Amino acid sequence: MRIGRFHYEGQTFFGIVDGDTVLPVADPFQSLEPVPGRRFALAEVELLAPCLPTKAVCVGLNYRDHALELGLSLPEEPVLFLKPPTAVTGPGKPVVYPAMSRQVDYEAELAVVMGKKAWQVQEEEAAEYILGYTCANDITARDLQKKDGQWTRAKSFDTFLPLGPYIVTGLDPGDREVSLYLNGERKQHSSTSQLIFPVYRLVSFISHIMTLLPGDVILTGTPAGVGPVQPGDQVEVVISGIGRLANVIVSGA
Amino acid sequence: MRIGRFHYEGQTFFGIVDGDTVLPVADPFQSLEPVPGRRFALAEVELLAPCLPTKAVCVGLNYRDHALELGLSLPEEPVLFLKPPTAVTGPGKPVVYPAMSRQVDYEAELAVVMGKKAWQVQEEEAAEYILGYTCANDITARDLQKKDGQWTRAKSFDTFLPLGPYIVTGLDPGDREVSLYLNGERKQHSSTSQLIFPVYRLVSFISHIMTLLPGDVILTGTPAGVGPVQPGDQVEVVISGIGRLANVIVSGA
Repeated sequence: MRIGRFHYEGQTFFGIVDGDTVLPVADPFQSLEPVPGRRFALAEVELLAPCLPTKAVCVGLNYRDHALELGLSLPEEPVLFLKPPTAVTGPGKPVVYPAMSRQVDYEAELAVVMGKKAWQVQEEEAAEYILGYTCANDITARDLQKKDGQWTRAKSFDTFLPLGPYIVTGLDPGDREVSLYLNGERKQHSSTSQLIFPVYRLVSFISHIMTLLPGDVILTGTPAGVGPVQPGDQVEVVISGIGRLANVIVSGA
Repeated sequence: MRIGRFHYEGQTFFGIVDGDTVLPVADPFQSLEPVPGRRFALAEVELLAPCLPTKAVCVGLNYRDHALELGLSLPEEPVLFLKPPTAVTGPGKPVVYPAMSRQVDYEAELAVVMGKKAWQVQEEEAAEYILGYTCANDITARDLQKKDGQWTRAKSFDTFLPLGPYIVTGLDPGDREVSLYLNGERKQHSSTSQLIFPVYRLVSFISHIMTLLPGDVILTGTPAGVGPVQPGDQVEVVISGIGRLANVIVSGA
């Protein structure tokens, strides 16, 4: 099932996408039962980010191939950072290249969307707390990341977290192909089978630190091949069984 | 004026504290006009954290005395990190010492509470965007901070951000005495006149990265004298003209 968030004539709502049709649901974190009698053509509604997280918890180095490429040893525990809710933007929306940076990079990632409040969840029960999965682009001002040491400024600019297009339910997160295309050319390509800390372990680890709330997202790390973008570029995150998240870079100067 | 957030018989509301009386306000980010005809005795309501930020933006090394104490050179720009909304807790509420850590420290800080949506605000106009100030304790698992390099895990445990007791309006943030008492003994004592990046500059800097929303908080850094706590300890942040934020550490094991 594919769950999206939409805007139509001043109203914002969640809906299930069925072919070319959107069936509104009142609250996908409570029930996936469509509101009776209402439907929209997919072509007539504006697509938004599929959820509004209260926090986006991100994992640093989490792909074996990326760690080997960088010549780094594998981490013993996940290294976490946060992106603020104000960084979230939707499919097809512009990503603003900030005047403060001289190098902005794409990072394709599988995002986990939490379905239920999760506190001290065991790895074996993590799946019950997940609503589904979507594509994320962990846009990063690489120069500021290096300068600051702490990654927060580099990762927190408005529009630096495209999410979408839909939350896909009922997926096994263990072997998703994750790719990034820059102006149509494939730059990143790996599989979540390469994750050092797989999805359910991340949910368990993070929920032993902070309570995860419905709609919160976990970004699971990026594979090898990150690189810079320029204003005018199109970046597309493609994940098998989930979809394609496309955004264009625009200058913020 | 002092603005608090309260709980009474299943309802949560903001209110202006006038002596021993609480005068409810519908939304302090819209108007500070009390709701006519309703009042509570301060003694009969439960005090909560004075706001629910969508993000808490924190500044690393920002006191001259603390930087000198550590033998560090002064930073050229503020170093930022985020604490998640789930870390927020209120005055008098327990701070949970997580089983995952072996060293948890207190850090007394002046917190700025935003009153209006702020994007690319100039330093000279920053005051217009601030609702007021409150006390914060940036509780930190120091061992995990050192281990991870990134500070997020160490700073993000549930209850690691006590805020309160009230948001105080109409203050000059430039010379506030900031103290921390551990079981009644003063451990930190400085003034915001020692801030490397003062409040209005922080608001301007951060708002050039991410949009600040009403109720979002900025933690302005901690002075010299940080140190560890143990379960059973009482920690109190005291800021001149603002008040006293007291919390007890409890074991999470």
